[in-house]
Amino acid sequence: MSLTRLSPAECDEGLARLPAWSLADDGLAITRRFLFSDFAEAFAFMTRVAILAEKADHHPEWFNVWNRVDIRLTTHDAGGLSRRDLALASAIDRFAG
Amino acid sequence: MSLTRLSPAECDEGLARLPAWSLADDGLAITRRFLFSDFAEAFAFMTRVAILAEKADHHPEWFNVWNRVDIRLTTHDAGGLSRRDLALASAIDRFAG
Repeated sequence: MSLTRLSPAECDEGLARLPAWSLADDGLAITRRFLFSDFAEAFAFMTRVAILAEKADHHPEWFNVWNRVDIRLTTHDAGGLSRRDLALASAIDRFAG
Repeated sequence: MSLTRLSPAECDEGLARLPAWSLADDGLAITRRFLFSDFAEAFAFMTRVAILAEKADHHPEWFNVWNRVDIRLTTHDAGGLSRRDLALASAIDRFAG
């Protein structure tokens, strides 16, 4: 999948289809916070995302504390957002519950 | 295990036995960075830590990107470091490789 950095118009279009995600302040990434009932639920989610990310060869930057998971998606090789980020965000949303 | 906040002397003593860990700037936590060969290795490590943390009912604050895992241990209920953090750090070290 293309590693070309998306244009501002393409970013807007992509984010319109990902209403739960926000553009990071620096414009280089999209972010979403996920909240679960406890750590076990949060880590089960992370495990699913990890397998998905490994298959896609595109990995998140993420932070976890207890029931909270903060995910940031960016494409370092593109210097910002690429279609890979939109695709991974969409796939994550499908099992975010 | 005690949730009492450690005294500065107890922190020093504990950290002396955990040479790979550092006291956070705010003095409320200990931190360690782990580097692996790739994402799969990093997440395998995280999975082991997650199971350990869940069994201990004491959970890390952690960040991962690709082959890097940054762990911060603190005890919110104690308002700083407790023996739980030292015990979890020691257990994590045992399989950090």
